[in-house]
Amino acid sequence: MADDCIFCKIIRKEVPSQPIYEDHDLVAFPDIHPAAPVHVLIVPKEHMLNLNDVGKNDVALLGKMLRLSARIANEKGVAESGYRIVINNGNDGGQLVPHLHLHLIGGKPLGHKLG
Amino acid sequence: MADDCIFCKIIRKEVPSQPIYEDHDLVAFPDIHPAAPVHVLIVPKEHMLNLNDVGKNDVALLGKMLRLSARIANEKGVAESGYRIVINNGNDGGQLVPHLHLHLIGGKPLGHKLG
Repeated sequence: MADDCIFCKIIRKEVPSQPIYEDHDLVAFPDIHPAAPVHVLIVPKEHMLNLNDVGKNDVALLGKMLRLSARIANEKGVAESGYRIVINNGNDGGQLVPHLHLHLIGGKPLGHKLG
Repeated sequence: MADDCIFCKIIRKEVPSQPIYEDHDLVAFPDIHPAAPVHVLIVPKEHMLNLNDVGKNDVALLGKMLRLSARIANEKGVAESGYRIVINNGNDGGQLVPHLHLHLIGGKPLGHKLG
């Protein structure tokens, strides 16, 4: 846990959010600046900066994040229409919050431009 | 394996590519239409449509894909400057090849627009 990290504060319930999923390892909640009708963040409870910060022991956690994203896409009704998974890492990647998180974005055509 | 899938053909070496990584489960090769100076695709050898098509038994494989993306980002020299991981699923997600794949994109500022 990092004292001044906004996602750690959400995980500790010091900052309110509207979690749509929570277990021992992960929490999921809506992005407060949605880029599309469906925009959910999936966040590991353990504080890690980004994918550079994950080790061999985190492989199962990473897989669980992706599997959960597919489950939430289904629950949100965008599994068939389609959705994009994005993980931004570092400055060039456009990472805004320095705590690993996965974006699930859907509910409108997202086009093909990736960078 | 799917007979008419371009990624399956690459995996079977029926279509040439320049793999930068290969093991029993995964292959990685450059995107032929790069969106940035670094644009690598990480692809499971088993044919799956997208994240909708993965089951509980694939969690380790998904985690391995993400962990490999961080390793390749490091090898390509963009781990510190930053990079974006994208998985497009279905039409709204902008998925062009119907075989699960992960984009690793870096080498330039990618901005914050996600959808």
